[in-house]
Amino acid sequence: MSANIPTDICFSFTGLVRRGGDTGPHKDGWGVCFYEHQGIREFRDYRPAVESEIAQLIQKYPIKSKTVVCHIRQANMGQIALENTHPFTREFFARPWTYAHNGQLKEYAFNGKGIYRPVGTTDSEGLFCDLLNSLREKYPAGPEYSDSLWQTILSYCKAQMELGVFNMLLSQGDYLVCFCSNNLSWITRRAPFKQARLKDADVTVDFKTLTTEDDIVTVVATQPLTDNEQWNIMKPGEMRVFKNGLTVWHSE
Amino acid sequence: MSANIPTDICFSFTGLVRRGGDTGPHKDGWGVCFYEHQGIREFRDYRPAVESEIAQLIQKYPIKSKTVVCHIRQANMGQIALENTHPFTREFFARPWTYAHNGQLKEYAFNGKGIYRPVGTTDSEGLFCDLLNSLREKYPAGPEYSDSLWQTILSYCKAQMELGVFNMLLSQGDYLVCFCSNNLSWITRRAPFKQARLKDADVTVDFKTLTTEDDIVTVVATQPLTDNEQWNIMKPGEMRVFKNGLTVWHSE
Repeated sequence: MSANIPTDICFSFTGLVRRGGDTGPHKDGWGVCFYEHQGIREFRDYRPAVESEIAQLIQKYPIKSKTVVCHIRQANMGQIALENTHPFTREFFARPWTYAHNGQLKEYAFNGKGIYRPVGTTDSEGLFCDLLNSLREKYPAGPEYSDSLWQTILSYCKAQMELGVFNMLLSQGDYLVCFCSNNLSWITRRAPFKQARLKDADVTVDFKTLTTEDDIVTVVATQPLTDNEQWNIMKPGEMRVFKNGLTVWHSE
Repeated sequence: MSANIPTDICFSFTGLVRRGGDTGPHKDGWGVCFYEHQGIREFRDYRPAVESEIAQLIQKYPIKSKTVVCHIRQANMGQIALENTHPFTREFFARPWTYAHNGQLKEYAFNGKGIYRPVGTTDSEGLFCDLLNSLREKYPAGPEYSDSLWQTILSYCKAQMELGVFNMLLSQGDYLVCFCSNNLSWITRRAPFKQARLKDADVTVDFKTLTTEDDIVTVVATQPLTDNEQWNIMKPGEMRVFKNGLTVWHSE
């Protein structure tokens, strides 16, 4: 999620959680990272989201944030364990960067180079470390959030896409970078707000009652979370960068 | 906490939480980091621990871990915000290191050197980054967990103690490093287990009913958490390293 005002994710998270072992096969752990002010708080569990008491709290307890990254996991490389549970985070030039990956690079092995190293054994975390290591090499004094950085990240993502499936979310709090390898959709909700109905749970929300007319809230997901709204389906190789709920950069 | 078997901290945490705005003044946020397998999960809030719904979950939900680091904050340097909430974590040579600080170094300013940088504005997080940066410089291929490392950390802690109050907990999952500047106590519980009664809440637990005779569980706190047990009061300048609930290294 990327929004222009601190917003909770209770509605979207309720739908996502159902896919973590009920309506979907992503039962091998889940995690969420909320940005608040300059900091983050994360919640994670290696248990299926539908069975997790911590996930139950997150569905009910409205933590308000402008940027949130969530993930539910279907394990392929790396056992079911906390260290293999997305999203992954690293401090990068005094900002907490967060990353989640959907897909798999079958031939991947971490190259052992650079200061960021994977704690766990997933291809995903290794790829995140590789990305940060390469950014640190290219921008030794830290990156500016401008076209050069987005092009560099896009090139990295496209190279991974050649090797497997690499749908990716990446953020440092202000910007939400979304790369589509084969599955990624987004929707921006703003006035006039309407009702939305989850695909995965019998829950409908009337956003009119929860928002002001200035609110802009974008939600990105591998598959649309609602069935009565028009989501934008991203193309393979497409990258979008959101800030305050709006696209500030896109490829092509 | 350091234990030889995955153990929950519900009892100790219940006492600690009372000090976060009720029996104690440390009402400016709280955090906890559980090590499980090679990974961690953290919970944190900038709200007082006694009012936090997340802290309520942690008191009731038994997460079992061999190493846990908790902190309740009384803000001095740095506003009340997530990024200033202990414990702080950084990946250091593929392990998640966790650190909490009690005290204050009034004249401290981060020197801006090294790859680890503070996200927030506390002296505490800056000092953690300084420590990791200096360890990375001394051990460019990563440290071994041996006398050299503990002596290096001890020297660092003693230097900070000259400049202010620096009670510290530090862990990478296996080892719990405890440095006493002016307030730190520890207790090791093992068979025959007895009853323990919290100082800060009307709660008594009979550890006999919760343990096996092989369990060894050490709890460290700035002030003893129970009033019917004999805690070991550490001396200023003393450092202890626990592993699996037992002291594996101590200064002097």
